[in-house]
Amino acid sequence: MTLKHPPNNEHIDHEMFKMEVNFDDISGELLGYLMNLLIESGANDVYYTSIHMKKNRPGILLQLLCSRDNLDKMKQLIFKETTTLGIRYYPLTVHRAERRFREVITEWGTVTVKEGILEGQVIQSSPEFEDCKKIAEKYNIPLKKVYEQVWKQLMG
Amino acid sequence: MTLKHPPNNEHIDHEMFKMEVNFDDISGELLGYLMNLLIESGANDVYYTSIHMKKNRPGILLQLLCSRDNLDKMKQLIFKETTTLGIRYYPLTVHRAERRFREVITEWGTVTVKEGILEGQVIQSSPEFEDCKKIAEKYNIPLKKVYEQVWKQLMG
Amino acid sequence: MTLKHPPNNEHIDHEMFKMEVNFDDISGELLGYLMNLLIESGANDVYYTSIHMKKNRPGILLQLLCSRDNLDKMKQLIFKETTTLGIRYYPLTVHRAERRFREVITEWGTVTVKEGILEGQVIQSSPEFEDCKKIAEKYNIPLKKVYEQVWKQLMG
Amino acid sequence: MTLKHPPNNEHIDHEMFKMEVNFDDISGELLGYLMNLLIESGANDVYYTSIHMKKNRPGILLQLLCSRDNLDKMKQLIFKETTTLGIRYYPLTVHRAERRFREVITEWGTVTVKEGILEGQVIQSSPEFEDCKKIAEKYNIPLKKVYEQVWKQLMG
Amino acid sequence: MTLKHPPNNEHIDHEMFKMEVNFDDISGELLGYLMNLLIESGANDVYYTSIHMKKNRPGILLQLLCSRDNLDKMKQLIFKETTTLGIRYYPLTVHRAERRFREVITEWGTVTVKEGILEGQVIQSSPEFEDCKKIAEKYNIPLKKVYEQVWKQLMG
Amino acid sequence: MTLKHPPNNEHIDHEMFKMEVNFDDISGELLGYLMNLLIESGANDVYYTSIHMKKNRPGILLQLLCSRDNLDKMKQLIFKETTTLGIRYYPLTVHRAERRFREVITEWGTVTVKEGILEGQVIQSSPEFEDCKKIAEKYNIPLKKVYEQVWKQLMG
Repeated sequence: MTLKHPPNNEHIDHEMFKMEVNFDDISGELLGYLMNLLIESGANDVYYTSIHMKKNRPGILLQLLCSRDNLDKMKQLIFKETTTLGIRYYPLTVHRAERRFREVITEWGTVTVKEGILEGQVIQSSPEFEDCKKIAEKYNIPLKKVYEQVWKQLMG
Repeated sequence: MTLKHPPNNEHIDHEMFKMEVNFDDISGELLGYLMNLLIESGANDVYYTSIHMKKNRPGILLQLLCSRDNLDKMKQLIFKETTTLGIRYYPLTVHRAERRFREVITEWGTVTVKEGILEGQVIQSSPEFEDCKKIAEKYNIPLKKVYEQVWKQLMG
Repeated sequence: MTLKHPPNNEHIDHEMFKMEVNFDDISGELLGYLMNLLIESGANDVYYTSIHMKKNRPGILLQLLCSRDNLDKMKQLIFKETTTLGIRYYPLTVHRAERRFREVITEWGTVTVKEGILEGQVIQSSPEFEDCKKIAEKYNIPLKKVYEQVWKQLMG
Repeated sequence: MTLKHPPNNEHIDHEMFKMEVNFDDISGELLGYLMNLLIESGANDVYYTSIHMKKNRPGILLQLLCSRDNLDKMKQLIFKETTTLGIRYYPLTVHRAERRFREVITEWGTVTVKEGILEGQVIQSSPEFEDCKKIAEKYNIPLKKVYEQVWKQLMG
Repeated sequence: MTLKHPPNNEHIDHEMFKMEVNFDDISGELLGYLMNLLIESGANDVYYTSIHMKKNRPGILLQLLCSRDNLDKMKQLIFKETTTLGIRYYPLTVHRAERRFREVITEWGTVTVKEGILEGQVIQSSPEFEDCKKIAEKYNIPLKKVYEQVWKQLMG
Repeated sequence: MTLKHPPNNEHIDHEMFKMEVNFDDISGELLGYLMNLLIESGANDVYYTSIHMKKNRPGILLQLLCSRDNLDKMKQLIFKETTTLGIRYYPLTVHRAERRFREVITEWGTVTVKEGILEGQVIQSSPEFEDCKKIAEKYNIPLKKVYEQVWKQLMG
């Protein structure tokens, strides 16, 4: 069974899928809407790439990552919300680092930091964007200043 | 056996392939020519993406979809027409909606509309581009006006 | 007065304009059609770039080069064929090399070669794409072979 | 004097500016945040393009349109929120169609439609995205169905 | 007179130019070479963007920033090294922050940090890439670790 | 067993892998550095594509081709040098033409030409970029002139 929420420890997941659709007959407005809808509906990631299609058409390639369990749901959504008549997909493997979360205290409040751990070693520390953004907006300071503060605490 | 022309009813095709080549030593002029040649020779779809390659080279990634039966033909064409020495490919699955065609009568003539059907329900209706284009050119009217007329008939 | 067809000798043209429109509510299908229409109607060049617009919209930027005399015609066409409500533009300068044309004889027929001349020196020689394409299609040979033949003659 | 909110009638505005910055030392996360901030702070439009920079760097080009009155405010924001040490800009002209708004009643509620008018003629009608989106979310129907309904009413 | 090396204090430079060329008949290999050549020859910046050109050609747009004094030199180089027969350009304004340089001592050696100053206030601090890269290569450590060390010193 | 250096004769290699990572929280500066590092460490090819990610983020997709034997090494490097917590990959097949090398003598020195051979027939001849570049720099001549000379010799 594939878990909807991948576990936080380091692991290799062989049950992921990439889905792809080419669009040349839909507007960017609808595709912007679709991206959010797919993420809220369980896609692990969704991203667009610009492509050059036949007849001089600037097209858009949708790529979506999801678990095997979500394949059908994603297909339903894409067929219903877009103009496509064909969706392609193939399996892939994902190697995920362990994820741990810690709190960092800044002068404006607490920020969660996500740590990536590989073979027991902390290899990444990244302040959660939404936490930093809330502070930047609340105190009307540049977002990069908030990140700098968090890094300062992390390294102190 | 893979059919050259996929059937019109809803189905899942496990015999498709995606082919890819990176180019940094060929001009856009030749790639524009190649796209049409590959489509006319049986590719289901061909599209280009801009990529950043080593040594500051703005490169182009060719992606091509074809059936297993057409793999060799496509490889031959790409090797003969381009500068590549390596072509990569992998299988993928395509879920296709049922396709039906109906005629819509506008004040300027008939336009074919392609319908997509999923589990018996019409989920898409798209006027055929070439039909609309012919009318726009013949009567010297904006192409979007032709599409609007067809949609009006479809919804009437 | 701006000439519709720029002269073939080396010159600096201060009467060119670049026009730009951002699109997020029109399909690639219509934009592919528009590109040809604008070129046939007198644009010196038309090209699209993929842009990232607000609300996660993958948009398309139209850029068009034309003479001052064609500004109004181009604006009319873009307003009529697309969904935009605003077209922006600004003047620019173009330095053009002198252009000369010569014929090259290959085993399959004649090909025109465009030469670029700067301060009296031939700096470029480029076989005309349409001539080469016709030969490649007529004799069913790779397009790059035709170019190679022309270059061989040019350098012989 | 430049008006902050351009008038709704057809007009040519010679007081617009385009601002540009190249980024190779800032993350996409911060740029996504910046886009919204600039739009909320008075930019007429903001968009990003992928560029190939020196040393194999995939960079991002920020382009921003604003009135002369907003030039300084935009510069301040970009300098404070990003890593750039240089901002370039130049004036351009914008030709805007007249804008009118009308209400369209659908089975799910009212949708505003923006009309574009050129020399007294309606050349565009586009349903307001946010209105359609609210209906799609409230009634859990595909967004394209909402647009279809509005177009049906418009053409009826 | 335009200075070849812009001054380090905050200033507005009205003597900059942007140069642009569209390419569809040259390879990425040659364009990668050209970028370095132009930068070494005095261009302030050079970058490429992928564009969609007529006849399905994936093209490349060269953009180059230089001072008025370098215009002719840049044109010469582009005409000689590429296939273009036309180069366009237009003036723009650049607002530059003041630049100051300071040294930061890490456990692996000294790193120069460039500071950006606006109205007397330090708004940016960015470790020089080449300094950090040399350390990463010499001591075989991840480049991001070197940056982290520099930031730690900066904030300490 | 997979060979680190693929053989020079025509063959089909079923032991290749494509690795992919999406980035939205790292700068282009670091990605430019990473590309070279990965190529020097045994990747067969590395390239970046611009993608549109959630929250209006202009992101970068890393794609890397390597043999099965290099999978772990590449994963280690990417985890250590970047901010990612997940790397995905899948196998693909590569059809490689035979490669042969010959020397061509120009007035400025010898240039290696790589030939591609398919079913015994020479289908490509491409002058080695680094050889041509060295000549262009040493003799201060346009790089395209060097290529022209080599082609002239090849066709003579």
